[in-house]
Amino acid sequence: MPTITQTIPGGVTAALGFRAAGISAGIKANGKPDLALLVSDAPAQAAAVFTTNKATAAPVIVSREHLSRSGGLARAIVINSGCANACTGADGLAAAREMTAATAGLAGCPVEQVLVASTGVIGVALPMNNVRMGLPVAFKSLGADQGPQAARAIMTTDPFPKEAAARFAVGGRDAAIGGMAKGSGMIEPMMATMLGFVTTDAAVPRPLLERALRDAVHDTFNAITVDGECSTNDCVMLLANGASGLTVDESSYSAFATALTAVCRELALGIVRGGEGATKLVTVTVSGAASPDEARRAAKAIANSPLVKTAIHGGDPNWGRLIAVAGRAGVEFVLERAAVRIGSIVLFDNGRPHDERAPDAAAYLEGTDLAVAVDLGAGTASSTVWTCDLSAEYVRINAEYRT
Amino acid sequence: MPTITQTIPGGVTAALGFRAAGISAGIKANGKPDLALLVSDAPAQAAAVFTTNKATAAPVIVSREHLSRSGGLARAIVINSGCANACTGADGLAAAREMTAATAGLAGCPVEQVLVASTGVIGVALPMNNVRMGLPVAFKSLGADQGPQAARAIMTTDPFPKEAAARFAVGGRDAAIGGMAKGSGMIEPMMATMLGFVTTDAAVPRPLLERALRDAVHDTFNAITVDGECSTNDCVMLLANGASGLTVDESSYSAFATALTAVCRELALGIVRGGEGATKLVTVTVSGAASPDEARRAAKAIANSPLVKTAIHGGDPNWGRLIAVAGRAGVEFVLERAAVRIGSIVLFDNGRPHDERAPDAAAYLEGTDLAVAVDLGAGTASSTVWTCDLSAEYVRINAEYRT
Repeated sequence: MPTITQTIPGGVTAALGFRAAGISAGIKANGKPDLALLVSDAPAQAAAVFTTNKATAAPVIVSREHLSRSGGLARAIVINSGCANACTGADGLAAAREMTAATAGLAGCPVEQVLVASTGVIGVALPMNNVRMGLPVAFKSLGADQGPQAARAIMTTDPFPKEAAARFAVGGRDAAIGGMAKGSGMIEPMMATMLGFVTTDAAVPRPLLERALRDAVHDTFNAITVDGECSTNDCVMLLANGASGLTVDESSYSAFATALTAVCRELALGIVRGGEGATKLVTVTVSGAASPDEARRAAKAIANSPLVKTAIHGGDPNWGRLIAVAGRAGVEFVLERAAVRIGSIVLFDNGRPHDERAPDAAAYLEGTDLAVAVDLGAGTASSTVWTCDLSAEYVRINAEYRT
Repeated sequence: MPTITQTIPGGVTAALGFRAAGISAGIKANGKPDLALLVSDAPAQAAAVFTTNKATAAPVIVSREHLSRSGGLARAIVINSGCANACTGADGLAAAREMTAATAGLAGCPVEQVLVASTGVIGVALPMNNVRMGLPVAFKSLGADQGPQAARAIMTTDPFPKEAAARFAVGGRDAAIGGMAKGSGMIEPMMATMLGFVTTDAAVPRPLLERALRDAVHDTFNAITVDGECSTNDCVMLLANGASGLTVDESSYSAFATALTAVCRELALGIVRGGEGATKLVTVTVSGAASPDEARRAAKAIANSPLVKTAIHGGDPNWGRLIAVAGRAGVEFVLERAAVRIGSIVLFDNGRPHDERAPDAAAYLEGTDLAVAVDLGAGTASSTVWTCDLSAEYVRINAEYRT
């Protein structure tokens, strides 16, 4: 069966039958948008992945409960930025429940069909008066053209909103997948690190929906890092409402999964490009590993190394730092067979440096979309992850976040 | 048996029968001191711990070999800064061997009684002409008063030299222990991260010497982190020459071990205080852990968290970041029983924040010698590690290291 996947403009309302809203409810002191709604006209099949952080935030607890009680159906998602509602005890849990109850009342659906997500400072009480007054306003402004407003309302330190969409066709029918994401610091998905919301107007049975989300997240959101931190609130939620008339089954699964992965990858790379203080997107590939797990572990170690990230920030082709991280990553590593590339320039192989090529590598590093690669010399497995450079601006942002 | 341990002024020549030197050999382009010698008048019992990094540097390979061939005896240590002699292939190995051979010739001892260490940029060839011409000059300037010169000659980005010494007495006799260390970036000892050289004029049988060094390093050099990086060259070497006439045995072991740990702790804390870009020394204590290993792992995760380190840099009592790291550290953690303290101020316990205390905590964080503590609420084990804050200066230093 021939399939076509193509990226298209748009975000979370690119799929039929979804409306979104984003407004300023006054949760953020600076008056920027901070409350978003996403509503499916009909109940949608829902799948989600949540943070593995054991200091689980209240909205994560409530969303997990609701998905389980609703049998995986969802009509709406309510999201606030400016406050994580994490480590807020019984009051925080009550606040998250009230957000879903109020949204259910407006949407006219059972409360367990509403999911909730929050992002912002940990340990601060959610200003519920603002949420209470804001929700009806957000509900009134729902529209199929309001995806960009929703994408802005979920931002914290993000320098720009992240939206992506794709269309896939199977046997003469086609359907859309669209999404939005936020995330800038505290980014290293150990499940899914950040908030991501993806919709499709295909009908997708829940087992296939869950498999597709798990696989897509592994290769996209879980393959990025900004600072090696995994937050208390991270989640990616995927809703499928069937409005396009296309139903995904085992024979068309790969078309759906390919399009979903394309959307998730674009959102994930957007998070890295907009990482706190980031000036460069860096693709880190590790090959020659003894296992895929070791390849991923070494790639993550390199992508999180402050010495690698500062060298790239400064345009310094300091390949010795890449080797040093590979050597301490707790994976099989054979120095004599190892190699390092910056772009396509081999700076170390067969146990010897090629420092005469450093000027070429330095020129390459002046770009903003970079690739570095390390061969561990220990096997045949490989893995790719994405990171950004570490700048003084990251320090400024995080030293001043609350002040 | 009554024992007394007291810290005393001095460094690597505080113990009798040791002479040191530090000179400028031109290895560093800026002309700063870069070649150090440490010589024991008599063969000394030697113990050492080396980096676990699999990209092992040439001097580490040679020192390990020599210790094994000499049966644990050493007369001299030769050290250069300005070049790590790591990832330099067969030429690098030959250079490290030549450094020990030339030193043995000057000291009149077998080559296997000379240990070697290097620190600086990885992957650059050691300028052997400078080493060849410098070694006789260094040898001529050896003196029991030249410890401070040696401590300066092993520095790279260190803002100040690190020296420490202590005296211990057992049964009417006393002996000294003195040391020097360097290290500023690429600091997280997975064996021993940095260079450290410690001497004592006690006579210590090799099994006791090795046990004492291993235990002291675990609680000092291996309990610090600046940036979570483990270098290719790290080592701590300990020489015992017996010149004081005091012999350590099982009954006096604890006096020796206590004094050794005191010297190593002072050197280790000096490394953190002088961490690249550091403005604050932070003692991180994790309690309530399910095991000592989990306590150490959680403490290290907190000590390496860029979000914790930038918050402390900015004086922001953002305790939620401490909880978030504890929750992602891969250890048992019970949010409802967890607690966070900044100094003596409890900001979170029993599942609830105490944000009204944030101003007091912010005032406390204006200091430069700080303590933070997290109770995991999961058990009774605890661990303490030391780290520094993360500043824009760290980024500047490491983005510009070679340029």
